[in-house]
Amino acid sequence: DLPLVIIAGPCQLEDRDHALMMSEAIREIGRRLDVPVIYKTSYDKANRTSLKGRRGLGLEKSLAIFDEIRRDIGLPVLTDVHSEAQCAEVAPHVDVLQIPAFLCRQTDLLLAAGETGCAINVKKGQFLAPWDMVNVVDKIRSTGNGNVSVCERGASFGYNTLVTDFRSLPIMAEQTGCPVVFDATHSVQQPGGQGGSSGGDRRFVPCLARAAAAVGVAAIFMETHQDPDHAPSDGPNMVPLDQLEGLIATLKRFDGLAKSL
Amino acid sequence: DLPLVIIAGPCQLEDRDHALMMSEAIREIGRRLDVPVIYKTSYDKANRTSLKGRRGLGLEKSLAIFDEIRRDIGLPVLTDVHSEAQCAEVAPHVDVLQIPAFLCRQTDLLLAAGETGCAINVKKGQFLAPWDMVNVVDKIRSTGNGNVSVCERGASFGYNTLVTDFRSLPIMAEQTGCPVVFDATHSVQQPGGQGGSSGGDRRFVPCLARAAAAVGVAAIFMETHQDPDHAPSDGPNMVPLDQLEGLIATLKRFDGLAKSL
Amino acid sequence: DLPLVIIAGPCQLEDRDHALMMSEAIREIGRRLDVPVIYKTSYDKANRTSLKGRRGLGLEKSLAIFDEIRRDIGLPVLTDVHSEAQCAEVAPHVDVLQIPAFLCRQTDLLLAAGETGCAINVKKGQFLAPWDMVNVVDKIRSTGNGNVSVCERGASFGYNTLVTDFRSLPIMAEQTGCPVVFDATHSVQQPGGQGGSSGGDRRFVPCLARAAAAVGVAAIFMETHQDPDHAPSDGPNMVPLDQLEGLIATLKRFDGLAKSL
Amino acid sequence: DLPLVIIAGPCQLEDRDHALMMSEAIREIGRRLDVPVIYKTSYDKANRTSLKGRRGLGLEKSLAIFDEIRRDIGLPVLTDVHSEAQCAEVAPHVDVLQIPAFLCRQTDLLLAAGETGCAINVKKGQFLAPWDMVNVVDKIRSTGNGNVSVCERGASFGYNTLVTDFRSLPIMAEQTGCPVVFDATHSVQQPGGQGGSSGGDRRFVPCLARAAAAVGVAAIFMETHQDPDHAPSDGPNMVPLDQLEGLIATLKRFDGLAKSL
Repeated sequence: DLPLVIIAGPCQLEDRDHALMMSEAIREIGRRLDVPVIYKTSYDKANRTSLKGRRGLGLEKSLAIFDEIRRDIGLPVLTDVHSEAQCAEVAPHVDVLQIPAFLCRQTDLLLAAGETGCAINVKKGQFLAPWDMVNVVDKIRSTGNGNVSVCERGASFGYNTLVTDFRSLPIMAEQTGCPVVFDATHSVQQPGGQGGSSGGDRRFVPCLARAAAAVGVAAIFMETHQDPDHAPSDGPNMVPLDQLEGLIATLKRFDGLAKSL
Repeated sequence: DLPLVIIAGPCQLEDRDHALMMSEAIREIGRRLDVPVIYKTSYDKANRTSLKGRRGLGLEKSLAIFDEIRRDIGLPVLTDVHSEAQCAEVAPHVDVLQIPAFLCRQTDLLLAAGETGCAINVKKGQFLAPWDMVNVVDKIRSTGNGNVSVCERGASFGYNTLVTDFRSLPIMAEQTGCPVVFDATHSVQQPGGQGGSSGGDRRFVPCLARAAAAVGVAAIFMETHQDPDHAPSDGPNMVPLDQLEGLIATLKRFDGLAKSL
Repeated sequence: DLPLVIIAGPCQLEDRDHALMMSEAIREIGRRLDVPVIYKTSYDKANRTSLKGRRGLGLEKSLAIFDEIRRDIGLPVLTDVHSEAQCAEVAPHVDVLQIPAFLCRQTDLLLAAGETGCAINVKKGQFLAPWDMVNVVDKIRSTGNGNVSVCERGASFGYNTLVTDFRSLPIMAEQTGCPVVFDATHSVQQPGGQGGSSGGDRRFVPCLARAAAAVGVAAIFMETHQDPDHAPSDGPNMVPLDQLEGLIATLKRFDGLAKSL
Repeated sequence: DLPLVIIAGPCQLEDRDHALMMSEAIREIGRRLDVPVIYKTSYDKANRTSLKGRRGLGLEKSLAIFDEIRRDIGLPVLTDVHSEAQCAEVAPHVDVLQIPAFLCRQTDLLLAAGETGCAINVKKGQFLAPWDMVNVVDKIRSTGNGNVSVCERGASFGYNTLVTDFRSLPIMAEQTGCPVVFDATHSVQQPGGQGGSSGGDRRFVPCLARAAAAVGVAAIFMETHQDPDHAPSDGPNMVPLDQLEGLIATLKRFDGLAKSL
């Protein structure tokens, strides 16, 4: 029942200046609200809906920027990995390795991530039941790495739609024993919903995030951008940066109430 | 943004003594917590999974008991109706007529209920999208009766399973303009999940009810029983009466926070 | 393993002339193809999406037209009933009483239909699993009426979408022992998909109907209209009358193959 | 409208003797029925539900066996790849590279597979709509490789359950212009349905395969094993080898009818 952690950042690492601007802004929000913050950023969007979607700055150029954010901005960094080889290369430069939802059953990736000793946040696949995550976590733990969190980001519900089953939060907590993260922005995604890219509806982020805080979670994950309508990916579901502070303040209050009971 | 109302009671009207015992106990909880309470009871379970399921005391015997609860216990009463003819007969004896989820598109039932002038709580069918409820509400309003609330009670999610999409609460509120009720016990039902009867998992009632209160609703509906494991219907998902007060106290706090923001 | 029966007709009984024109055209198709045909028509669409949708000619005016179709056109007639009272009134004028999907768990309706002694076709609710139909059939059989068929018409799949699980055909056949009907036109419905009315995509009717015939069914149900785009209900999913004969000819061949194996 | 191709083989390459026995038996079935056959086998099951599941013989040992099956048994070979690096290594030893469903949006894997020039069979993710496959195919085609087929293997339907939407076959054919394959054995899988492994129900394989042949497909994919109940993976849904010939004979007849219309 530790206080709520916020994992926030833009969907992709666009360039160094943008990363420093965003991470500094998010750090200041965390300071003002006295909420621990982890900076989320992706060096590569490896599974864009279409080939035309921008993928991010790439691995080589990003690692130095991760170092800079950790050292100069002072925020821990979370990023996602997509292959076994990337795990060992990326781990020294981040605080949390994240396993993408589509890849959450790829055994070798889970093992390679686990073997880095880094903290791991693994997203529940849109095609998995909450109780299926026990097997996913056990794969990582088999490496001796017990520093694992599990993340709800919506389940397939018909076509191009996700639904969040909030029962999954206590089920995953109880069955895996891991801290549970709720990804409030991908949960409002409409996968492939715009033909060549994913849609979403950011208006529902506060609704789902409040619900998660009231149920009780270790962390809430939200992508944010200073100009979501022009962001290179996931714009429809990102929280505008200028609304982030108010939302986190609200979530902190729900978290405080939930954990006081 | 009125304070949270609780709609609570056993799934069915078993007999007069039971009804008086339950309604008095629920009234006292409401008084102690200063929470407005409506007593829910059903004179007939018209759509039991199997013919062997008990259906309740029946219409004729129940009306006098409804009167007694209203007059002597002092609680408003909500009950569900299943045919046009029942609406006018039942309305004088209750405060709220409820339209069951399976029947929420039966035009004549909606019109007959509306024409009584009674308050109407209409449950969203497990087969409907939240935005579909506009048409349902418009049918009732066409009678000149604007005293309508809409109720989320889960959406079909594969077989024998429901999922609650909490986006439906703000969507229904915005699109219908009606107060929104969340039915926390039927939402954890597993329809037909026990072969000859429905299953459910009452452990998740507090989880979903807290989520609903944090999102913001007018009322939370919960079935309760002093001995759910021996109740004639919906036992697996009813809240034990001795846990009801603690749960409502929690929900009141989430509601207070949600409505203070 | 009797040869395939076709249940066909317009969604609603629009007027006497239309009914006689449609039933005669369908009778001729059946004669030319040597396929037994049952004429489907509805005197009342009791659960239209919106109040503005036309509901049909009404019960009183329709019964004489049913008689005329049976006597003069020579086709058996199937129609749906929506309340207990309608069952006994309608039964003498038709060959098959149909229970609508939304009403398939309304015990009193099932019993009243069963008690007429008429053949009953009961549609599986969009919210039911195939194995749940055993309980539905048992309710009807409790009246001593064993002349029951069960009908697949799609299961809820996210919002405003149905999916046909073809495993349901053998499951229902085995578990209920009843003839199984496949409703090929409602299975392509998009419930509520046009806001104030249901959408659908008739292009997929032949695809699903062929699949059903190959799996093996007793009957295929298809709504048809000489001008679906101007029909008062279910236009998007009805088969144009001028395509019906070709489609039935195809289905007869798949049925012949399926039942020869 | 070429005649139906069958893709068949055991879920995993267990050892050389087993592979030769199975491929020879399948070749003989194909010869007797005059049906073109592709041998399916996997050197690595990279996404088993649990770490305890056996994964297959491994890449290095398998390539020589693939060569032997192609050269000595005379069957084309299909296998699945899980990383960019594997594509170029495996391609010279097989006729078809298969992209697993969970990986169907991993851009780099699709590009690496495409660049081999090998034929590609890409499975539709359980979390994708049929129309989403256009973007998947376009990624592969961007490499100049147009030899792509798309494969339906079920869509997520609640938890631990898949449903086959047969509308996806014509939708994918029309929108991608690719030959469409139906995977009849994974479509009856119950993912994670046995806790530490996936369940399934092979009784429904013929039902779904017949439906697919009647709708019209280029190929049907079925895993088969001489003793499915003791197979190291996917046993619950594999077709027993001694039932395969009868099933293919049936499917050939449905395919012949479908393509004659």
